[in-house]
Amino acid sequence: MAESPRRAAGRRLQLPLLCLLFQGITAILFAIFVRYNHETDAAAWHLGNRSNSDNEFYFRYPSFQDVHVMIFVGFGFLMVFLQRYGFSSVGFTFLLAAFALQWSTLVQGFFHSFHHGHIYVGVESMINADFCAGAVLISFGAVLGKTGPVQLLLMALLEVVMFGVNEFVLLSLLGVRDAGGSMTIHTFGAYFGLVFSRVLYRPQLEKSKHRQGSVYHSDLFAMIGTIFLWIFWPSFNSAPTSLGDVQHRTALNTYYSLTASTLSTFALSALVSGDGRLDMVHIQNAALAGGVVVGTSGEMMLTPFGALTAGFLAGTISTLGYKFLTPILESKFKVEDTCGVHNLHGMPGVLGAFLGVLVAGLATHEAYGDGLENVFPLIAKGQRSAKSQAVYQLFGLSVTLVFAFVGGSLGGFLLRFPYLDSPSDSQCYEDQIYWEVPGQHEPEAQTPLNMEESDTRA
Amino acid sequence: MAESPRRAAGRRLQLPLLCLLFQGITAILFAIFVRYNHETDAAAWHLGNRSNSDNEFYFRYPSFQDVHVMIFVGFGFLMVFLQRYGFSSVGFTFLLAAFALQWSTLVQGFFHSFHHGHIYVGVESMINADFCAGAVLISFGAVLGKTGPVQLLLMALLEVVMFGVNEFVLLSLLGVRDAGGSMTIHTFGAYFGLVFSRVLYRPQLEKSKHRQGSVYHSDLFAMIGTIFLWIFWPSFNSAPTSLGDVQHRTALNTYYSLTASTLSTFALSALVSGDGRLDMVHIQNAALAGGVVVGTSGEMMLTPFGALTAGFLAGTISTLGYKFLTPILESKFKVEDTCGVHNLHGMPGVLGAFLGVLVAGLATHEAYGDGLENVFPLIAKGQRSAKSQAVYQLFGLSVTLVFAFVGGSLGGFLLRFPYLDSPSDSQCYEDQIYWEVPGQHEPEAQTPLNMEESDTRA
Amino acid sequence: MAESPRRAAGRRLQLPLLCLLFQGITAILFAIFVRYNHETDAAAWHLGNRSNSDNEFYFRYPSFQDVHVMIFVGFGFLMVFLQRYGFSSVGFTFLLAAFALQWSTLVQGFFHSFHHGHIYVGVESMINADFCAGAVLISFGAVLGKTGPVQLLLMALLEVVMFGVNEFVLLSLLGVRDAGGSMTIHTFGAYFGLVFSRVLYRPQLEKSKHRQGSVYHSDLFAMIGTIFLWIFWPSFNSAPTSLGDVQHRTALNTYYSLTASTLSTFALSALVSGDGRLDMVHIQNAALAGGVVVGTSGEMMLTPFGALTAGFLAGTISTLGYKFLTPILESKFKVEDTCGVHNLHGMPGVLGAFLGVLVAGLATHEAYGDGLENVFPLIAKGQRSAKSQAVYQLFGLSVTLVFAFVGGSLGGFLLRFPYLDSPSDSQCYEDQIYWEVPGQHEPEAQTPLNMEESDTRA
Repeated sequence: MAESPRRAAGRRLQLPLLCLLFQGITAILFAIFVRYNHETDAAAWHLGNRSNSDNEFYFRYPSFQDVHVMIFVGFGFLMVFLQRYGFSSVGFTFLLAAFALQWSTLVQGFFHSFHHGHIYVGVESMINADFCAGAVLISFGAVLGKTGPVQLLLMALLEVVMFGVNEFVLLSLLGVRDAGGSMTIHTFGAYFGLVFSRVLYRPQLEKSKHRQGSVYHSDLFAMIGTIFLWIFWPSFNSAPTSLGDVQHRTALNTYYSLTASTLSTFALSALVSGDGRLDMVHIQNAALAGGVVVGTSGEMMLTPFGALTAGFLAGTISTLGYKFLTPILESKFKVEDTCGVHNLHGMPGVLGAFLGVLVAGLATHEAYGDGLENVFPLIAKGQRSAKSQAVYQLFGLSVTLVFAFVGGSLGGFLLRFPYLDSPSDSQCYEDQIYWEVPGQHEPEAQTPLNMEESDTRA
Repeated sequence: MAESPRRAAGRRLQLPLLCLLFQGITAILFAIFVRYNHETDAAAWHLGNRSNSDNEFYFRYPSFQDVHVMIFVGFGFLMVFLQRYGFSSVGFTFLLAAFALQWSTLVQGFFHSFHHGHIYVGVESMINADFCAGAVLISFGAVLGKTGPVQLLLMALLEVVMFGVNEFVLLSLLGVRDAGGSMTIHTFGAYFGLVFSRVLYRPQLEKSKHRQGSVYHSDLFAMIGTIFLWIFWPSFNSAPTSLGDVQHRTALNTYYSLTASTLSTFALSALVSGDGRLDMVHIQNAALAGGVVVGTSGEMMLTPFGALTAGFLAGTISTLGYKFLTPILESKFKVEDTCGVHNLHGMPGVLGAFLGVLVAGLATHEAYGDGLENVFPLIAKGQRSAKSQAVYQLFGLSVTLVFAFVGGSLGGFLLRFPYLDSPSDSQCYEDQIYWEVPGQHEPEAQTPLNMEESDTRA
Repeated sequence: MAESPRRAAGRRLQLPLLCLLFQGITAILFAIFVRYNHETDAAAWHLGNRSNSDNEFYFRYPSFQDVHVMIFVGFGFLMVFLQRYGFSSVGFTFLLAAFALQWSTLVQGFFHSFHHGHIYVGVESMINADFCAGAVLISFGAVLGKTGPVQLLLMALLEVVMFGVNEFVLLSLLGVRDAGGSMTIHTFGAYFGLVFSRVLYRPQLEKSKHRQGSVYHSDLFAMIGTIFLWIFWPSFNSAPTSLGDVQHRTALNTYYSLTASTLSTFALSALVSGDGRLDMVHIQNAALAGGVVVGTSGEMMLTPFGALTAGFLAGTISTLGYKFLTPILESKFKVEDTCGVHNLHGMPGVLGAFLGVLVAGLATHEAYGDGLENVFPLIAKGQRSAKSQAVYQLFGLSVTLVFAFVGGSLGGFLLRFPYLDSPSDSQCYEDQIYWEVPGQHEPEAQTPLNMEESDTRA
């Protein structure tokens, strides 16, 4: 069904106007609210008689940069595996994350560093905003190829708010521990995206199935994403923890967990294929599950053996999920999960939350000594027993699932609004709708932004 | 016109002999002049009773490494977008930067750390040398595909000297502030390269136009460069600042500015295209303008809102430049700017210099407190007013433009010397002239290093 | 010769079962032996009254992360140059290194941090394990494309042990200095791999020669590996040194050395080619020799001039090696060295060891002052003269060569066992045997894991 030229013209303006509108609003809010904190403000920093070497910058900036690489290179390239959707994968990652960083600085700032009418920012805001962008990109992975950039920006608008509220409830109200975000980032991002994808279900998606695979070099590009995520995950989980032994231990636990998820992924990938050959989809994704699964417990006294075991289990369930669960999710539950975020972030995130319940429940004054204060302050102060902390951890997982389902449903229903830039069923996983693509890569149908009515799909 | 075999043989020897000559000369100069400084010398470091944790290494090396990634991966891969010039883009970046690091260690050393007949080196020399290499690579971007490696090395020989003199005049003589190099690196490198390209103007360049575009995967390779530049730009601008709040604030400002230039680039790219589609050239380049534009003012009390505004403007003018100005520069002003460095480094650099004028002019003792000393030492000591500093900043921009124009012209005229390795008009943007290229990539004309006389083009 | 279905089925299970077995064994050994050290244990760290900023994490973790990038991205992508072996190059690097990190944590732990029945781990264990993985990957480079993952895992099992013993003999028993591993990593890894490859010599390998080259984009992928290795090598050599001036000086020396090896590689590559064109193989590999050659002497008072000279020589011999020696090694000595590790790691490693002999022999109390203790503790304590240290260094090289030859021979003979997953002579350098490869990349022969008997090759 052809669009009227006027409607097509209107649709062409959606993306630029939305970008400008969002940028205008965040800029105004920044002008009103955002201020340098005492570590980044010239006058405030020099008020105290502190040594420059005490500036938080030197303890967190290297970790921040590693996280930053993960968000933009890691997530961006991991999704380049699709043969004709590389520009969109890395480009929309870029756009979404850039917006999410600004918007989340405001949302998280209101919840975590709002004093006397202002939000105070420094390297910790940067890390937190990157974490929130990570959750948005996980959700993006579920709907990759099936949504336009306008839809994605609107999704991010909502998701960043829901993320901020959920994080506030867990960390500040419930006193839940979740430094590396097994719950707040991975579980939340995955189920938000999956529910979102469910609502936007396309029964006719097989029209685009021929573009859903990879080509040889797109798989190698995707490995750039995988490897950078794998390498820097120890920095991700340790970036926001207490300094000293906690940060050190978290990095070490994550490092071990990832080695184990890599070995179990290779084992399972060869085992479940008919002919003993390895599947790039598993290696690119499931090998990373070891980072997700210790997101909650990485800062705790998990022990190196515990880290290996956790990683091993995560790689195993993730690979099995890709092989057996993803097809069922699609056929039976009408959830089309392009990148398999349920396998990489959903199940390992939930497993990581349970692991956090277990390890928190086992915490003792003996095992943590005076370091208990840094990991479980409420237990150290005697306000909670370890068992009680475990119950709170479990409750945090439930809260996260509720926020993810409510947010994802809400987002999905809002974005079924027909005049957005959703591609038609036969134009999914195709860069040309949104990008000028160099000639050699021949177009199938030269109808940029002249998408089918999205309401005809519902 | 065929070359005589003897002349062709002579030309083949130019590159290796020049590399050996340059390496020999810098090695001799290193032997005579370069010494470990008090932070890298075993005896000197242990003379003072300092803690190892006070070594400058721990405050600057992580930032240095980020800068190092930008120079070699960032610039190298950003230029890989050309379909048949990837080996040269990344390879000549490698060669030029390696030479520039050595040569600039000497030139900058003479100006900045020459005491008692010796140049003393440590991590700050490494950062400064990388910065100078950055300027050379910006100029390389203007002439990419139209010059041979011998020409490029000779260009670098001259440019490093001009860069060093200009930087010395600005930072040491005029007391101009320019930590992230909006003037000394971006404006200088861009206009040096543009004037250089103007002098080497090729009226017959359309003979090679069919190779000037990208292919699908070369655009993805280029995005590796873009994303690494984008991620690490906060480290670039903050690498050489004072420690403590200044370094922290600079990173934060740059981070915000880049998010805004990304949003404005996506908005403008979709807006100026006929059909609402995004252009990879804009995303790959203009999104980075937010880093350039806060190169001068990033260390100042720009405010987060100021950073967003600056980035927004930079992304906007940069994208508009690619769309509207680059064709005019070529058709009217005979400036062929392969990578559009005028849009990414030139205009945003000049804008960044003006922003520095503004923010310096607004500096008050109240806003900076005791931190004023670290950003504007001359104002803090009462030797200058803020307004006077602003005038000096403006003067610094003028000086930079003069050095860039003089240097670029001089370089261009010297390199029109006919016996160098310039490709013929029909062999531009082609790796095969300089590289053994694997078979699958079929040659057009098997005449390596048998270039047309470059003097026939003048 | 066709395999029986039962044998083929058995062979398909080798890889998954071996992964599971190895993971099970290391997990059990971790449970029994591996414990957090006093920097990563909550209780232990808070026992002492130390500031969090003193935690080793802040001095070594950024360097560790750079090393981690080198191992997984650097080595992984460097080997992607083969046109049809990219999945295996980056994938088996991933698998081998992940296993080596676990296994080496145990082996090195027994030798270096075993107290009261436990191995204590922290960031230094992580660096050391990554170094050991580096040696394994160097050996992998020699046999790249000619061995299956089961063979490689078994090779790693043996090599990690031999590496650990050799390192212990050199560093702990002989008091040899080798921070960046010219001997323990590069010489050992290269000659282990070369001898291993010699024992597995395939006289019929020309059947696969048509796949031994690169294609245009595979060479660009390989440059990702090269550049990341080049950039981060200063961190590699300095990661395990004493803190303060030593770490700083090592990074600086390596930085200079690499610039010189780059210039000499470009010079020699153009010089030795018939037509003056550059060869990607040289640029991708020999330019890195400057990092290898200062692995031993980088922490010493080598002087910046010394670093340039060392790098220059290393780039030169490495490029000449690729051009003239590799063909002879194959034709006369029956050593098939896929990646030319003899040129990049072998000869520059040995040269680096000799350089260490020289610079150690020239050490004086005057040159090092009180810093002598950190570089040559035995000389500082008066237990050894500088000349005596030099002799020990030389002896260390001999020991390393013996361990490499014994280990490589042993490994090679064990892996000639016929029922492993070695590809047939006509299926070398081919991903499809081990990986599900997307369609576009057409199979030559659809016989995954149905390899010829490897005993028919001997």
